[in-house]
Amino acid sequence: MADGSLTAGARVPSTRALASDLGISRTTVTAAFEQLAAEGFLLTSSGRAARVATPPVATPVVRPVPGRRGKAGRSMSLSASLSVSLSGYGRRVAATEMPAIPASPAAAIDFRYGAVASRDFPTLVWRRAYQAELLRRQPSLFYVAPEGEASLRRALQGYLRRARGLVCDAEQIVVVHGSQQGIDLCARLLLEPGDDFVFEDPGYLMARRGFEAVGARMAPVRVDAHGLDTASLPQDGRARLAFVTPSHQFPLGGVLPVARRMALLQWAQRNRAWVVEDDYDGEFRYGQRPIDALQSIDTDGRVIYIGTFSKALSPQLRLGYLVLPVELVPVFRHAKRLADRHAPVLDQRVLASLIDSGAYERHVRRVRRENERRRAELLAAVARNLPSDARVDGTAAGLHVVLWLPGLKAVDEEAFADAARQKGVGVYPLSPLFASRKGAKARAAGFILGYAGLTVAEIDEGVRVLGQAVREFA
Amino acid sequence: MADGSLTAGARVPSTRALASDLGISRTTVTAAFEQLAAEGFLLTSSGRAARVATPPVATPVVRPVPGRRGKAGRSMSLSASLSVSLSGYGRRVAATEMPAIPASPAAAIDFRYGAVASRDFPTLVWRRAYQAELLRRQPSLFYVAPEGEASLRRALQGYLRRARGLVCDAEQIVVVHGSQQGIDLCARLLLEPGDDFVFEDPGYLMARRGFEAVGARMAPVRVDAHGLDTASLPQDGRARLAFVTPSHQFPLGGVLPVARRMALLQWAQRNRAWVVEDDYDGEFRYGQRPIDALQSIDTDGRVIYIGTFSKALSPQLRLGYLVLPVELVPVFRHAKRLADRHAPVLDQRVLASLIDSGAYERHVRRVRRENERRRAELLAAVARNLPSDARVDGTAAGLHVVLWLPGLKAVDEEAFADAARQKGVGVYPLSPLFASRKGAKARAAGFILGYAGLTVAEIDEGVRVLGQAVREFA
Repeated sequence: MADGSLTAGARVPSTRALASDLGISRTTVTAAFEQLAAEGFLLTSSGRAARVATPPVATPVVRPVPGRRGKAGRSMSLSASLSVSLSGYGRRVAATEMPAIPASPAAAIDFRYGAVASRDFPTLVWRRAYQAELLRRQPSLFYVAPEGEASLRRALQGYLRRARGLVCDAEQIVVVHGSQQGIDLCARLLLEPGDDFVFEDPGYLMARRGFEAVGARMAPVRVDAHGLDTASLPQDGRARLAFVTPSHQFPLGGVLPVARRMALLQWAQRNRAWVVEDDYDGEFRYGQRPIDALQSIDTDGRVIYIGTFSKALSPQLRLGYLVLPVELVPVFRHAKRLADRHAPVLDQRVLASLIDSGAYERHVRRVRRENERRRAELLAAVARNLPSDARVDGTAAGLHVVLWLPGLKAVDEEAFADAARQKGVGVYPLSPLFASRKGAKARAAGFILGYAGLTVAEIDEGVRVLGQAVREFA
Repeated sequence: MADGSLTAGARVPSTRALASDLGISRTTVTAAFEQLAAEGFLLTSSGRAARVATPPVATPVVRPVPGRRGKAGRSMSLSASLSVSLSGYGRRVAATEMPAIPASPAAAIDFRYGAVASRDFPTLVWRRAYQAELLRRQPSLFYVAPEGEASLRRALQGYLRRARGLVCDAEQIVVVHGSQQGIDLCARLLLEPGDDFVFEDPGYLMARRGFEAVGARMAPVRVDAHGLDTASLPQDGRARLAFVTPSHQFPLGGVLPVARRMALLQWAQRNRAWVVEDDYDGEFRYGQRPIDALQSIDTDGRVIYIGTFSKALSPQLRLGYLVLPVELVPVFRHAKRLADRHAPVLDQRVLASLIDSGAYERHVRRVRRENERRRAELLAAVARNLPSDARVDGTAAGLHVVLWLPGLKAVDEEAFADAARQKGVGVYPLSPLFASRKGAKARAAGFILGYAGLTVAEIDEGVRVLGQAVREFA
């Protein structure tokens, strides 16, 4: 049939004849005929000879998908996909530059930001809770509500009040696949192509990419040691949304003072703009009680709070949550359902049980102490090994610091990071996080050093090697 | 400060004086001052009296978020959210009608489609594999590649070739959060507001909603006993995409014959349109070997194949995958990364190990036998209990059938479903899955009966009760 030697309507040999011709069992031939009939190649009716189906639209030639091997690899140029027909969103996404994701750490001692130590993960507690939830009988397995399990949302409500000062109802919470999905949902639902969004300069690149992908335009606002400089907020009324990290500015590390928090909220109210508060590491504040979330002083329902389990548990879990102004709850639930129905149920129930039992907060305290030790070692090692003009910023909170090396300029960052990587140490240039390359010749070189994935000994050794690299770089 | 009795620049009492005044320890007062300074309320410098920070922008009055309790509940009207500023996408999503998700089964014996029996889930095998993966040491926990774990993609490539005839490279696979995310990514990347998409009439509502939400317009094409009627495909060149379920049309159950498969692919080629093949239950074909996927005869790189673990394992896992034409691989990877970075790592590794060990395919065979038994019982019970003109369609494959009751008309479907629910049995009207209500007065009533979540005894009893309901309905 495929090569045209049997045409539409032609009778095919009987199963008996074919079995005898081919020397195989008639059962086999019958099964083959049934399969051909089921796939539409043959017309059969009982007692009559089978015929080739009509109309025989075309010759199905099964070939492998063209150009498979090697062409879809990681190095494939994105411009190739621009030639195929994509939506406006698709074309913007195809053209988006994104940092590479190395399959393994890029260096023996890698200060990559976002990594957490696997020995910090509460394996035994997690395993026990997971088993309990896995064995809990449900009548049947079905889709659940898009906003997430009620038990987790109730547990989060209490946790957020205790830990982050948030005042909210469990109904305002939507569980998402990590903070990136929270950002993406905000981008899709709140920004139109051509809208402006206020963005910290420097700021968190994956959020910027998410907003730009929907066609919105960045309105960068400078950041100083106290976070976003609210005096520089645009007053042209074009911004529909501001993305901020008030608890610990990413990357520079400032904590937004209350006066600026109020100024930001008033700006949002005047401009009818949304404020997206990414509280990516708010639990990790050292020396003092964590500062309450910006959401806690929002009286106008303008703040969308994004929380995550990536830092306290694991970025590989892909679980986070939004706390929404009540007016936005229904549309975010619908959008979450259209995006992927809901977050995985088992992981949600495990988290709920860990929060309810107090195990989660004990764990966070333990990890905070671990990271306090790492941070102390990092600061001590910098003082011991780096030039006296080296400065470390953003140490009050979080899981990373910014290391400034005034002996180098920002334009040297890539070359220095390469030199350090040659010696087995990964550090990450600050410049790609700025809105533009302007000023990079005058600015001191800055690097992000995440420490949550390393041991104290690795931190010590890593900074020692960095000191060497600085002396040799000149 | 909040009520204005301490203004900017004012000196505050010393910690010593305040401790003595209030009769509390100086440590407590000092901690409070440090917190106030950290939050930006106070300016402190060593040796000098603390002052109220300047500029005191406003009075932070911490009030609860307005109108919290009860307002964000499930019944909240979506029209309220239309008054807030949303994107075009947001406004479409807010206006989208979606079926309710009952927290628990709507009836004692619920033939809801998409549910699977929890006793079919391979709990012990899953638990063992999960523990092994949980305890496997990683150097640190970090984000992984957006397309998913290489081990799972390799395992899937082999599985798809064996089970579904797919010819692809592991590089063409992107792991997603269930087939809904696959649909959403296709909608975002391939459709522009105003574009047409070809859609089976009747068809899968959540896919239709996903395409409509990006502003595309449905071009419905009629479905008969053999699936999509390809002779009715629009020839105006406006459709950019066709969404099809060739292995087992949802909901009517036809299997698309090879002649129509070829016609569909030729149409796609002529129209430069994408074909999205939702193979939602392709593993479940009874009597015969499952028919190979449409993707397996696509020589032009136009088919995007969507697979899922929702039917063979659990819809609560939220795991599925796309097999993409090579040209689309880079843009889908970028989009997945912007959407939520990647799927959860542990679940992916567990699946990879189950497929590699053969446990997954043994499990699928076992569940297929279970469902074959359920299907047989359903057909027998219908013959025993329902009027002789009742007809059951779509029985060759899948986990649901369509029950036609020619004694009733389509306009009676809701009333009959309500009557059945009163008796403790849930069945689901077909009409909402049609593109329009036209013809509902003439058409026989049809209901979707999913059986994968029920026991044989429940199926038997459920159909018996349905028979009663039919006799009483008149």
